Amino acid sequence: MHYLDNGATTPLCPQVKEAILTGMEQFGNPSSLHGVGLSAELQFREDAQVIREALGGDPKGKLLFTSGGTEANNLCLQGAARALRRRGDKLLVSAVEHASVLDTAKALEKEGFTVEYLPPESLTPEGVAQRADSRTILVSIMYMNNETGNLYPVTDIAKAVKRKAPQALFHSDMVQSFLKAPVKLKNSGIDFASVSGHKLHAPKGIGALYMAPGTRLHPLFYGGGQQGKTRPGTESTLLAHGFAAAVKAAQASQEQSAQHAAALNRLLHEQLQGVEPVVFNTQGEASPYTVNLSVPGIRSETMLHFLEARGVYVSSGSACAGGALSHVLAAYGLPAERIDSALRVSFSRMNTEEDVLALTQGIKDGIASLARKGRKA
Amino acid sequence: MHYLDNGATTPLCPQVKEAILTGMEQFGNPSSLHGVGLSAELQFREDAQVIREALGGDPKGKLLFTSGGTEANNLCLQGAARALRRRGDKLLVSAVEHASVLDTAKALEKEGFTVEYLPPESLTPEGVAQRADSRTILVSIMYMNNETGNLYPVTDIAKAVKRKAPQALFHSDMVQSFLKAPVKLKNSGIDFASVSGHKLHAPKGIGALYMAPGTRLHPLFYGGGQQGKTRPGTESTLLAHGFAAAVKAAQASQEQSAQHAAALNRLLHEQLQGVEPVVFNTQGEASPYTVNLSVPGIRSETMLHFLEARGVYVSSGSACAGGALSHVLAAYGLPAERIDSALRVSFSRMNTEEDVLALTQGIKDGIASLARKGRKA
Repeated sequence: MHYLDNGATTPLCPQVKEAILTGMEQFGNPSSLHGVGLSAELQFREDAQVIREALGGDPKGKLLFTSGGTEANNLCLQGAARALRRRGDKLLVSAVEHASVLDTAKALEKEGFTVEYLPPESLTPEGVAQRADSRTILVSIMYMNNETGNLYPVTDIAKAVKRKAPQALFHSDMVQSFLKAPVKLKNSGIDFASVSGHKLHAPKGIGALYMAPGTRLHPLFYGGGQQGKTRPGTESTLLAHGFAAAVKAAQASQEQSAQHAAALNRLLHEQLQGVEPVVFNTQGEASPYTVNLSVPGIRSETMLHFLEARGVYVSSGSACAGGALSHVLAAYGLPAERIDSALRVSFSRMNTEEDVLALTQGIKDGIASLARKGRKA
Repeated sequence: MHYLDNGATTPLCPQVKEAILTGMEQFGNPSSLHGVGLSAELQFREDAQVIREALGGDPKGKLLFTSGGTEANNLCLQGAARALRRRGDKLLVSAVEHASVLDTAKALEKEGFTVEYLPPESLTPEGVAQRADSRTILVSIMYMNNETGNLYPVTDIAKAVKRKAPQALFHSDMVQSFLKAPVKLKNSGIDFASVSGHKLHAPKGIGALYMAPGTRLHPLFYGGGQQGKTRPGTESTLLAHGFAAAVKAAQASQEQSAQHAAALNRLLHEQLQGVEPVVFNTQGEASPYTVNLSVPGIRSETMLHFLEARGVYVSSGSACAGGALSHVLAAYGLPAERIDSALRVSFSRMNTEEDVLALTQGIKDGIASLARKGRKA
């Protein structure tokens, strides 16, 4: 199997499997007053600290575990909008966000908030700052795009926004970039950051939201006093432990993994250099972990199935979009034929050169076979 | 270790550990269009079906996985209130619900809904039905109380409510009762039921909400199209698989476990019969799995620590209350001294007679030792 769809989800790494295995014996409820509970609570806090530190977060900041990136993004956007309603009613959101940000922003519009959607070419410090004003309460811009791998200068943008509109808070969806692109949240101007375990070789079902010191959010749930009442509910201790193990493993190999991804990325480009009609959609500042390309004339789904028959797994875009046409590529101004034939290749440190060669040979063979069929039809 | 705090959380059973172990290899994202995703999706659906069937749910109903009982209760109360706002503004909620129902109801009051809190003595078909009227949109009554083990006749109550107020929907928090007290949701009058994995020997961090055919809820999150858009976010496949395994194991031993719990319950009563000043707070129709008792004169926390030193773990009430005084015992009209000295003993099928004898001997010794200290002080 050549699994090159790590932007959708990743296989569990050995360190995570080991952590889950030992974590299954630690069964206490962190809220219980006795020692079985205390032991679970201490482990849970330690796991939160691992993730906060990997984000370069302020030790006085909070790290709340959630059920995933979707909940983290919702908690931040809904929570900040409701907590800051008296301060203003305007949100700035990039047009290339994940559905869990964009759809939440649309829901907030129905609640009376005003949302401005920023096209990717405006995602510069000046471009965003000029749109922020005294009514702006939250700006949400992802660090690394999930479909193209594009990186946006969120730290510089956050600082520029705060010079223009000091009351505005800044959120960044870091689900794709976490431990793939450098970050140090302390004093960065970024107040909130969302991350997810399953993009990093931990299980699906766990994510986290970092909150800078002094920030507060209206909760999505009500109930017990867990996680400072901002995110109540019995803590997901086992998956939090798996997530922390994934983070430690990714940190240990971060530099080496990035170089490895860059090498795979170069190999992919070399192998498809001059292959007609392949065209690369990822342009400009981008992470080596993700490549978006199109084979105009062959619909994404057709190519995906051709590749799958050879054991090669890629995607047409965000898994969460379930095959709908990409709003990201549309925002980048790509023509319909390129959007309709887009493929997202996303690497992890577990991928090999063989995976890339299987993919590039598959694409070449696909072009020969499918384009011919297309002409006959 | 004598762990008798299974109402707070439970150790993982062997079948769950096994399912987690094999589930870790099934890493696909159910939303991915390729085979790795499809395989994960099929497993996820099968796991949902296991839980829906164990609830006796309608095959045309939905079973949504959540991050736990708290999220399930919030999704139902917040979701139903917002979805049904045009139909009416009144909710009926029992006064002895878990914090995740009560605190959500209080938050809905701030949004303009009217909530009536029903005392435990009114939790009869007639008692609830007479409070339902044409403005009532949702009634929420738990099946088994988490602190006392009391069972409320939710099926009969739901039917009576619907005769009086056919537009009202009915929710029951079944977190404590699931597979401990019989239930068949199909055609029961109950529209929504919340359950949780970690009360049943599955990990913390997974729960589910059953929705009867034809019902709909406003979502708490926005994002991808997962779980019919009512509960978006990448599916928590590993914990869902563990939860399904826990359910299958509990079903296989349901009858035997109930008899075992009844025997342990009888033993507890026998051993503490006539022991002064022990008094049993659980009265009336109740599950054998939970016993609430008080040792007036010895504060709960003091007795908990005394017992813990002997390896016996019980609680003073709901773990989620983190040691606050019980609103449940107050609703039952108990005097402050009994509330202040309450102990909750909660069994699982893993408990033994030795566990009970260690507890009862511990309580007797505690009375001798702590009451004496109390007199000296």
